[in-house]
Amino acid sequence: MRNALNPSHTAISGTTREGRAMQKGQQTKTAIVDVALILATQMGLEGLTIGAVAEMAGMSKSGVFAHFGSREELQISVIREYHQRFEQEVFYPVLSLPRGLPRLRALFGNWMQRTSAEIDSGCLYISGAAEFDDRPGPVHDALASSVQTWMDALHRAVRLSVEAGDLDGQTDAAQMAFEIHGLILACHYEARFLKSKTALGLAQRSFEHTLHRYGAALAPDVQGMTHVARGPAIKTN
Amino acid sequence: MRNALNPSHTAISGTTREGRAMQKGQQTKTAIVDVALILATQMGLEGLTIGAVAEMAGMSKSGVFAHFGSREELQISVIREYHQRFEQEVFYPVLSLPRGLPRLRALFGNWMQRTSAEIDSGCLYISGAAEFDDRPGPVHDALASSVQTWMDALHRAVRLSVEAGDLDGQTDAAQMAFEIHGLILACHYEARFLKSKTALGLAQRSFEHTLHRYGAALAPDVQGMTHVARGPAIKTN
Repeated sequence: MRNALNPSHTAISGTTREGRAMQKGQQTKTAIVDVALILATQMGLEGLTIGAVAEMAGMSKSGVFAHFGSREELQISVIREYHQRFEQEVFYPVLSLPRGLPRLRALFGNWMQRTSAEIDSGCLYISGAAEFDDRPGPVHDALASSVQTWMDALHRAVRLSVEAGDLDGQTDAAQMAFEIHGLILACHYEARFLKSKTALGLAQRSFEHTLHRYGAALAPDVQGMTHVARGPAIKTN
Repeated sequence: MRNALNPSHTAISGTTREGRAMQKGQQTKTAIVDVALILATQMGLEGLTIGAVAEMAGMSKSGVFAHFGSREELQISVIREYHQRFEQEVFYPVLSLPRGLPRLRALFGNWMQRTSAEIDSGCLYISGAAEFDDRPGPVHDALASSVQTWMDALHRAVRLSVEAGDLDGQTDAAQMAFEIHGLILACHYEARFLKSKTALGLAQRSFEHTLHRYGAALAPDVQGMTHVARGPAIKTN
């Protein structure tokens, strides 16, 4: 099977009729995944059917099916797309910052920005985990490996902050990353499900206090602040 | 409509034929809810159908329907039952302990014990939130109000620890309760979905460190411990 995602292949063959057809096929596939991602965040990955996606995309079911071959493949494509957007918004923008606390703060800031937006739309990493935590298979594996990649990146950012001397040398990076993950999960749960108005502020303050506990200097506006604290201003798009 | 759950009514009428029939009806209803709760933790509240419950309970669909009247009423009964068990395991046993840190530690210990068991079986408060966070209605409301009752109890336990002088007088009880909630959510997520073997230990250590940060004396076995720290030994059943 040819790899339509291979850029060099597309670039070379883009001038031939076959190449143009493949480019168009890829565009259609991308458009289908966009639609499917919206559906999946609304109705869950398990709510994603070829029929529903076809209807929303204004295509025939067989047309959608031709691009993915199975519902499972469509679900996995949606997870990959979600992961890519997550990385683009949360992870890549911080790579231009110095390793250490600036990067860790920006990571959390970007993650919170995304969490804040997902109070309305839902988070595939959270809803998907609840759907697939007891269903082994390729969809579970794709989702778990995406999340694990992100957890590893967070863990590394903490470790680099310790190595840079921005956090206490005794810091257990796994534990700190676990606690930060907990803040995001509690924020999403309490804001989205319990409709808490204070969850975003609580998560921000808790993050600063967590940094402080692990040896970082306390941000000047954290003590008694009532607004939402922010890391360095990183535009994510 | 008569209230079959009213104990005084049942006690008085238990000796009459009508009373015995009502008792039997109540027993059947309880047995159906038991079965439905198992199904709901496996397949989600939305996976709960009158048909599936009837099959598992060895009853006719109309028999199950007669006891609940609707699938929604069955879902709400399952939530009430889950909540009752949660309170019996996590909340009630600590009321015999002194207010303050002993009670808060025991609350967390019992919650962790339940979380640990639910790594295999699933947690209705977490899976249910993911299912119903964008579906308003009576099932959402029953679930959210159950969780909120528990969050309020946790908040109160923190506040009483501050008032008892066991935690720093400046402790923001809402913030500390939020952080504790995050530890449980991260533990469940990482242990159940990501199959992390270290999540339970991380949550226990983080809890002790959180207490310490808010002014509690550090438990002697927390520093560098490798086993799972425990609150006071509370048998929950």
